[in-house]
Amino acid sequence: MNKYDVVIIGSGPAGMTAAIYAVRANMKTLLLDKLAPGGQMVNTNEIENYTGSGAINGAELSMQMFEHTQELGVEFDYKTVLGIEDKGETKVIRCEEDDATFETSTVILATGTVPRSLEVPGEDRFAGSGISWCAICDGAQFRDKDVVVIGGGNSAVEESIYLAGIVNQLTVVTLFDLTADPKVCDKLRAMDNVAVYPYQDVLEFTGESKINGVRFKSTKEDATERHVNCDGAFEYIGLKPTSEPFADLGILDKFGCIVVDDEMQTAIKGVYGAGDITNKKLRQIVTACSDGAIAANSAAKYVDSLRD
Amino acid sequence: MNKYDVVIIGSGPAGMTAAIYAVRANMKTLLLDKLAPGGQMVNTNEIENYTGSGAINGAELSMQMFEHTQELGVEFDYKTVLGIEDKGETKVIRCEEDDATFETSTVILATGTVPRSLEVPGEDRFAGSGISWCAICDGAQFRDKDVVVIGGGNSAVEESIYLAGIVNQLTVVTLFDLTADPKVCDKLRAMDNVAVYPYQDVLEFTGESKINGVRFKSTKEDATERHVNCDGAFEYIGLKPTSEPFADLGILDKFGCIVVDDEMQTAIKGVYGAGDITNKKLRQIVTACSDGAIAANSAAKYVDSLRD
Repeated sequence: MNKYDVVIIGSGPAGMTAAIYAVRANMKTLLLDKLAPGGQMVNTNEIENYTGSGAINGAELSMQMFEHTQELGVEFDYKTVLGIEDKGETKVIRCEEDDATFETSTVILATGTVPRSLEVPGEDRFAGSGISWCAICDGAQFRDKDVVVIGGGNSAVEESIYLAGIVNQLTVVTLFDLTADPKVCDKLRAMDNVAVYPYQDVLEFTGESKINGVRFKSTKEDATERHVNCDGAFEYIGLKPTSEPFADLGILDKFGCIVVDDEMQTAIKGVYGAGDITNKKLRQIVTACSDGAIAANSAAKYVDSLRD
Repeated sequence: MNKYDVVIIGSGPAGMTAAIYAVRANMKTLLLDKLAPGGQMVNTNEIENYTGSGAINGAELSMQMFEHTQELGVEFDYKTVLGIEDKGETKVIRCEEDDATFETSTVILATGTVPRSLEVPGEDRFAGSGISWCAICDGAQFRDKDVVVIGGGNSAVEESIYLAGIVNQLTVVTLFDLTADPKVCDKLRAMDNVAVYPYQDVLEFTGESKINGVRFKSTKEDATERHVNCDGAFEYIGLKPTSEPFADLGILDKFGCIVVDDEMQTAIKGVYGAGDITNKKLRQIVTACSDGAIAANSAAKYVDSLRD
């Protein structure tokens, strides 16, 4: 079996940057993904904060990054990773397809997160164009427009405060009451252009070619149904790290994120994390790219030390 | 006087990314630089590791990033900052030009580093195309070619090991003996394609339109002069953080780098660092961009808290 210096699992901005740095460090590199390269970017209509790209479609930026990896000769393969076995200086990566198995000295885990979604009617139709999971990414598109935020935790409330400074009217719809830190909840409630509807079940996103509103129903006895008009909606009902295949390695925190140090090293020698899947604070394309560069650099140093 | 939410000093990738994130967070933003936007990128012939850009000229990437800031309405001004006065919730920024002074709630210091240079004949002629200060950036251009590295410290030796895996013949020329960690020095000396010349004074870089060699002379009694042919040279004789204007703030380490935490916060509330000027490990364009995004995000939260 052909042994790699590094196998990178996940081809979002973290994984692709790791691949670029790895091949440039002369590592035998394999980049794996079960889906098309780009990760969450692929589903983002407009990205405005990847430095140098201006306003760009997410799928287009994904393709530019992937082409960059290909110009440098990165080997890419569509595979669904089922698990990793740590045999010390060799890691064995088991995949679903044709019992594919890869051996490698190091592995960089960059499988990202999947935002939880409501799974209500209309959501599939507007996901990525009208419904967003990232205010810092897409908020600027809704300047002076009306927006609904779904969720009541810290992310939902903090991003609502951020959005309220940009949009015209902001409506927060949440299943329980606001559960974020009291200070930020107070701040949100005090804003002129914000209305909060606690204890609500979202029923559907309405609209034909474009989203035009959200329909929801009180979970209290009255069960009042409401429809709020909007030009966009943001869902903050949690993130789900794509870390099930790595659950048995003992490197995840209680949220399922990969715990890394500032060199992207996990508790297992030769295993690195990068991007949204790690226990980081600001999940952005540029911060993911940075993680990927650091992880590949650390992996290169480790592979180098094995050759001593 | 017009007060800003954030003034960003330095318009390399860290400063420009901070500006992009700041304006998108609705902060009144001013970006200052004494030179053209781009920082060290401007002097780099080919950049191959900024994800999505493929192989790109440094000045071109600088311009793309600057255009991105301008599309978002970032205010840019050519100014040479002389110092910052911390008046609590207001910072006063003093510039050289026409006694220009700016007031701001927060400031992001992103002035980068300047690589020390030898200041010998031929250096100006080949700087950025033939002479490089970054193996991880430019090493791949010299695959199977001959290269001279100047310097003997940790950076010089580590980058020499990295380069030796890529290039044909590598010659290390250093003023004293190798002073890096013994393990890496041993490793470098054991490599087949590496020759080390300790106790040498570099006299000049030779060549007409392209660099073709380095001439140096022993500092020992014999004072033997040598000329080594090469296709490129790398200088690792130290970095100089551009932090003199901030020296009196008490936020620098002994190397002159700005000490920041993982949210890019310095010891002074409202003052952030980003990019090469900070006490970081891997100085790259993508890691600088990441710092800029994090710094702007932290600054936005702080400005927000001042409004409470």
